[in-house]
Amino acid sequence: MLREVTLDDIRPIAIGAGILGTGGGGNPYLGGLHLASVIREKGPQPLIDPFALADEALVCVVGSIGAPTVSIEKLPEGTEMARALRLLEEHTSRRFDAVAIAEIGGANSMQPLIGGLQAGIPTVDSDSMGRAFPEIQMSSYLFGSDAKVAPYAMVDAADNAAVVPQAASDLWGERIARNIAVSMGARAGLAACMMSGAQLKASGVHYTMSLAHHLGRRVIEAQEQKSDVPEAVADVLDGQVIFRGKISDVNRRTTKGFARGWVRIDGFAPPEASGGSLEIEFQNELLIARINGEALVTTPDLICIVTEEEGEPVTTEMLRYGTRVAVIAAPAPQQLKSEIALEVVGPGAFGYDVEFRPLPGGVIGLPPDAG
Amino acid sequence: MLREVTLDDIRPIAIGAGILGTGGGGNPYLGGLHLASVIREKGPQPLIDPFALADEALVCVVGSIGAPTVSIEKLPEGTEMARALRLLEEHTSRRFDAVAIAEIGGANSMQPLIGGLQAGIPTVDSDSMGRAFPEIQMSSYLFGSDAKVAPYAMVDAADNAAVVPQAASDLWGERIARNIAVSMGARAGLAACMMSGAQLKASGVHYTMSLAHHLGRRVIEAQEQKSDVPEAVADVLDGQVIFRGKISDVNRRTTKGFARGWVRIDGFAPPEASGGSLEIEFQNELLIARINGEALVTTPDLICIVTEEEGEPVTTEMLRYGTRVAVIAAPAPQQLKSEIALEVVGPGAFGYDVEFRPLPGGVIGLPPDAG
Repeated sequence: MLREVTLDDIRPIAIGAGILGTGGGGNPYLGGLHLASVIREKGPQPLIDPFALADEALVCVVGSIGAPTVSIEKLPEGTEMARALRLLEEHTSRRFDAVAIAEIGGANSMQPLIGGLQAGIPTVDSDSMGRAFPEIQMSSYLFGSDAKVAPYAMVDAADNAAVVPQAASDLWGERIARNIAVSMGARAGLAACMMSGAQLKASGVHYTMSLAHHLGRRVIEAQEQKSDVPEAVADVLDGQVIFRGKISDVNRRTTKGFARGWVRIDGFAPPEASGGSLEIEFQNELLIARINGEALVTTPDLICIVTEEEGEPVTTEMLRYGTRVAVIAAPAPQQLKSEIALEVVGPGAFGYDVEFRPLPGGVIGLPPDAG
Repeated sequence: MLREVTLDDIRPIAIGAGILGTGGGGNPYLGGLHLASVIREKGPQPLIDPFALADEALVCVVGSIGAPTVSIEKLPEGTEMARALRLLEEHTSRRFDAVAIAEIGGANSMQPLIGGLQAGIPTVDSDSMGRAFPEIQMSSYLFGSDAKVAPYAMVDAADNAAVVPQAASDLWGERIARNIAVSMGARAGLAACMMSGAQLKASGVHYTMSLAHHLGRRVIEAQEQKSDVPEAVADVLDGQVIFRGKISDVNRRTTKGFARGWVRIDGFAPPEASGGSLEIEFQNELLIARINGEALVTTPDLICIVTEEEGEPVTTEMLRYGTRVAVIAAPAPQQLKSEIALEVVGPGAFGYDVEFRPLPGGVIGLPPDAG
């Protein structure tokens, strides 16, 4: 288990979180550059074992909200997370003992490290997705406990701020936050989901920062050994490489604060097992993978696109015609597969008329030694 | 001058504010029903002479934000204004001495009476437009003093709430509030623009509740005497009846939280002076009136559509093919015609490539005896 995050850990975390991001969560390379500059200034960020948290500790979640396509063009001012944390503390007249991770995927794995470091609050080695999802209410902290998304605070690079003291439901909270994010240029810092240590322990997907780090290191090792990197990724995530091919078409639009669309990948050498075309639909994140119209992998199970040679993550906003990629499918953490969870993160929640067909197995969210 | 608003005052105010609303500000009939139910429960609402306010008194503005087309379909829960006031008080840890009127036009003339009555705070006989405008920053309280739109508070009928503690500018504040309003179903209660009594006195368009009441009474009198009602309206507002005809076309869409479009009115008996067609463009409010493509009346001067026979206001969302109407043009209050004001409420602010050509004269915002 990782005890702190140093400069040397950034590259493995960026790779691992990039892959776990299933296309979303924000660009991990840019997130890594930002985190490096903050660690250089302030030193390593301590990482807390979730079960070392006191039951009565006060925790909140921070992350960036918006469209990944925007986040690579509109750079942050840099202190959004810490300012959002402080604003929420001010509004509620309470102080946070720790910062948890909304989604381990992409740059959002790093925002709680950045915000925590800047605010002097440690980060918990726990997230609420074990991957990335586009909307705030898609969080095991919320559907796995009686925590609520509101009160929450948002800030942008231009010194605009907003607090939502209450929302009629978590879904209403998401709608309001999304529209505020749109008015802030489709990128804002968010501090939300206040909860106790007990709530976090009961509902989180734990040790995912350690998992991202471990995954990234295995990728780097495989790259150095010139072995099959996508297979190494599948091995760490208890998944499998389901497709290898070349991106032949991308349909992507930035709409209502999301990047939505689909990508088509044509298999190498059609007569092979990996022949034909794989189509993946996304809403910030990759959600449904289909071959010949049949759903092969369905949300919340993970669909990860990596470059075929190097096994580096390919995020939604970086999908480009001609890139040679491998697609890995991996089983979602157990916390996302309960009946109540599937109502929020299953195919129906995204408007797909498809049943969730769980992949067998799964290691995301288990203690490091159990994997 | 009106000293309090009783049940008997509602109908004249609804008519007068409906006409001053230049098509917007929300449906005054529905606003009047709401106000009547609150006055029946709590008694009359006291109205304060703006110059009777202490310089150091703390004032804020309340009103409904959204699209008028929505406000006739989605009724309020009823306590939005008072809840927004209380939320802003709570957030700033201050208490308001009085509530001012954002816009005297339409139902928004009544929201500060409703919210004030429910919260036990008197209403000031002063608004910041002398008419209605679609956006928050179009307020003489803002461009006429160093008051700011933020901090502000918003609530909706479904128990959602939001506070914006700071905005990079008043225009940013408007953008964020607008998007929050959209996520609240294009209708929300807003408490904003905290200012001192001194700021209000220096920047407001005063005695406009009294003016709306007086205008409504003159309309009712003219109706009873069967005299020319549109002429009576023009007389009170120091304006003139510029057109009489029948609505022949309406283009109206509810988009991004606004009702936008245009209306065409064909003159009675083409050979007459009032012949031809008048086209009026609106964004919630009527902004530019053109005959044969030439701009005849330009914002911030008032363009008021009333029914030709009865002189009752016709709001943007009630524009319908075949209605017989008269159009009155009236000079805007002086507070809207300074160079700095015209940058915010002149034709250019709405994207029209037209010069503001002020109508001569004007009485809106002058002390009652000066009119």
